[in-house]
Amino acid sequence: MRVVFIGAGNVATHLAQSIDQTHDVVQVYSRHIQNAFALTNLLKQAAATDNLQEIFPNADIYIVSVKDDVISQIVNEINFTSGLWVHTSGSVSIDVLSAKFERCGVVYPLQTLSRNVDVNMSEVPFFIEGIDEDTEKLLVEVAKSLSETVYIANSLQRSKLHVAAVFGCNFVNYLWAQADEILKTAGYNFEILLPLIKVTLDKAYKVSPIEGQTGPARRGDFRIMQFHEEMLSNDDAKLYRILSQGIMKKYNIDYEQD
Amino acid sequence: MRVVFIGAGNVATHLAQSIDQTHDVVQVYSRHIQNAFALTNLLKQAAATDNLQEIFPNADIYIVSVKDDVISQIVNEINFTSGLWVHTSGSVSIDVLSAKFERCGVVYPLQTLSRNVDVNMSEVPFFIEGIDEDTEKLLVEVAKSLSETVYIANSLQRSKLHVAAVFGCNFVNYLWAQADEILKTAGYNFEILLPLIKVTLDKAYKVSPIEGQTGPARRGDFRIMQFHEEMLSNDDAKLYRILSQGIMKKYNIDYEQD
Repeated sequence: MRVVFIGAGNVATHLAQSIDQTHDVVQVYSRHIQNAFALTNLLKQAAATDNLQEIFPNADIYIVSVKDDVISQIVNEINFTSGLWVHTSGSVSIDVLSAKFERCGVVYPLQTLSRNVDVNMSEVPFFIEGIDEDTEKLLVEVAKSLSETVYIANSLQRSKLHVAAVFGCNFVNYLWAQADEILKTAGYNFEILLPLIKVTLDKAYKVSPIEGQTGPARRGDFRIMQFHEEMLSNDDAKLYRILSQGIMKKYNIDYEQD
Repeated sequence: MRVVFIGAGNVATHLAQSIDQTHDVVQVYSRHIQNAFALTNLLKQAAATDNLQEIFPNADIYIVSVKDDVISQIVNEINFTSGLWVHTSGSVSIDVLSAKFERCGVVYPLQTLSRNVDVNMSEVPFFIEGIDEDTEKLLVEVAKSLSETVYIANSLQRSKLHVAAVFGCNFVNYLWAQADEILKTAGYNFEILLPLIKVTLDKAYKVSPIEGQTGPARRGDFRIMQFHEEMLSNDDAKLYRILSQGIMKKYNIDYEQD
């Protein structure tokens, strides 16, 4: 299949290289031509352009992998409606494409992709939406040529996946950053927490995070919670209290009790 | 060495079994005699008691492994002052012991220990404090017979380790629980997030959580953040906003900007 990439960022760079192994990426658009060239240099034989009017109209699949709020702008500027158009965003509905293109869909890789960090694409879960059954089947096939785990997800499911990933990964990483800062004030490195994090993840996975919850809030240990809040910066203390209150509410532990 | 355990909970159960392999646990106290027996059944040859006045006064080490706020109460009721007395708490100062016992210290295993879940003790980091150099050396030796990673930590360092562990593990687990709930409303299981969590942890460990931060707040993507908050329950939306604000503040992204 002949594939055109619109966008040359982190997701596009990983996806294009993967797809180029079993299909043919024939063109890469970026509004910065040097970014387009940076990606075509990694591909078998693709043209680079920074002009949307020069997009080849005869490709099989067009993959729009740009910032969420730029997708509709790009769609507006395309001057033909042939081909299968897909985007790769977690939180943008298929509607932004179906308003213009008869054949369209979404290919959402649930992974944090940095241009310069290798990722084993076969382990990345892909979530597929197609405007009709044939399109969905085709996109599932393409995704299965990239990854071992391919799911169907409509636009609502996909946006829930995205917000779950923000909680389970982006926010989690922020808590690790705060833990790292606290550890540094005691002369320790983040790696000192790794064994505990690994067991926590293992328990969350094998049992469930709800059953695996431990710690002062889960026990309702108010003395420790107060002691901890007093040790922390204002912002961290506020966060500590809100997270502890959330845990206590979840397990019906009364904050007034003691 | 002859070791007495005061307490028969999660930490005591794991520690006592480990120590019993290279030393002799001779007695276990619990205020519920059946808990003391449950632990002595797992040991080579230890007596069980529910009476603090029956604690053997001629042991080498007494390990007080009970709830934080019960430690001082127990210390008060002991009617002799010989032996090396240690507790196993992250957030209790050595002072609670040094007020009464000449030789005392702390042996703090940084791990979530559940009675019925096996833990490879050799991978658990231990943090040691001794009231004097000789005591510290002795406790480090004991800890090294249990684990490959043994550190020195004074009471302040230990309490910082504990609060870092609350952020990096207890609170992280709570965010995973919230992610799990959101995923379930979309028909998915928590395991769908595992590849993304593993890469996030890997990046946090190899680079640093501060450099590895990604997501809508890190990008300052207000459209997505607003969209996500609208999808969430009131409590989760509040948490989403506070965590996003924390991330934006950390990376100097202005919330008013757009």
